[in-house]
Amino acid sequence: MIKPIILLHQIQLAENLGAVARAMGNFGIDQLRLIQPKCDPDDAKAFAMAAGNETVLENANLYQSLEHAVGDLEFVFATTATERELIKEYHTPKTAMPLMIGKKVGLLFGPERTGLSNEDLSVATDIITIPVNPDFSSLNIAQAVVVILYEWFQSHTSQESWLHLGETKPAVQKELHYFFKFLETELDEVNFWRVPHKKEKMWQNIRAAFLRMQPTEQEIRTLYGAIQAIKK
Amino acid sequence: MIKPIILLHQIQLAENLGAVARAMGNFGIDQLRLIQPKCDPDDAKAFAMAAGNETVLENANLYQSLEHAVGDLEFVFATTATERELIKEYHTPKTAMPLMIGKKVGLLFGPERTGLSNEDLSVATDIITIPVNPDFSSLNIAQAVVVILYEWFQSHTSQESWLHLGETKPAVQKELHYFFKFLETELDEVNFWRVPHKKEKMWQNIRAAFLRMQPTEQEIRTLYGAIQAIKK
Repeated sequence: MIKPIILLHQIQLAENLGAVARAMGNFGIDQLRLIQPKCDPDDAKAFAMAAGNETVLENANLYQSLEHAVGDLEFVFATTATERELIKEYHTPKTAMPLMIGKKVGLLFGPERTGLSNEDLSVATDIITIPVNPDFSSLNIAQAVVVILYEWFQSHTSQESWLHLGETKPAVQKELHYFFKFLETELDEVNFWRVPHKKEKMWQNIRAAFLRMQPTEQEIRTLYGAIQAIKK
Repeated sequence: MIKPIILLHQIQLAENLGAVARAMGNFGIDQLRLIQPKCDPDDAKAFAMAAGNETVLENANLYQSLEHAVGDLEFVFATTATERELIKEYHTPKTAMPLMIGKKVGLLFGPERTGLSNEDLSVATDIITIPVNPDFSSLNIAQAVVVILYEWFQSHTSQESWLHLGETKPAVQKELHYFFKFLETELDEVNFWRVPHKKEKMWQNIRAAFLRMQPTEQEIRTLYGAIQAIKK
């Protein structure tokens, strides 16, 4: 797997540089290139915001021009908040991911105040723009890095929900049905339904609720215990 | 469309609170609830980091307990960096989205240093955990908010790449083929191919490159002009 390289053009604030370094660590990215930085990568504020990922700052490579910084890359995505005049392909972070597979890719971010100029953008193969609220579209630079690296990381990880079970096992339906029998008998005994013809609907709803619960074996035992304890 | 509500439990740093407010603005989210905040929502640092979205800080609601803060919600997602002992359903930001449709949902984030305790998590219906590098899994709180709100915003926006064309139109194939005829004639004239039997393969490759370019009508005219100019 080839990891993308982060390129920051004329980054202004050391805090943002540190926050980018932290985000890179969160998504396992280690190559950082700084083009004409306006702050010092060794600044204490950058180190504080890196929150333990100082290595990426220490190993950052410095460049005097964008052309040099992208020289060895196969594909350069520039990031912009808004659509520009240049005839370029625009992607969201998600739709950009398939284009990155197997390529040595640079992700280029502009200075905080102005973003990338059209001249800067001309070195880019394609553009990534993050879908945001059009009335408040200016993302913090580290936030933009996070979103794109999150998509990159996701493109390599499975996307399934899971139930944390620890030591216990999910109950099978038979165990639930035994429990339902037990519960129904108990409720019958205490004349819970009051009006007999309402029982069917009420009882369906109660079972539906317990089915949605998807209890574990242990939880079913706890439910038996609780009902028996209340009964006494 | 029902928008999620952001709940911050015992947030510590005003800068982070402001960064959360900015991120909420970026994705069009306006309801913020603060449970026992350890910093002042009116702090100048919070306002500076909000970068124009102070309204969300000014309108934030304060709560003394998590129970009160989630009281009117239909579904509460708590966020954690690691899997915990409680038997809960875990989702990634992406897999959580379908569960949010049509529900009044709260997104709960814990204090920066410790995250949410198991006691805090017990108010949650389900858990969201962001896929990250296991060796450096601690996301900044505002970064975690950004990632989840980005997924929420995406679930309402289309995911297609597009070509920015401005005033120009993409060339149709016929225009490309005329251009190819012109180019081939020019190259034949200057005996570009040298070895005749190599022409077929070389010419296929040249056409492939121009097809990948997907030029506009204007760009085709520019190409004609450039070749004619070079010829003179």
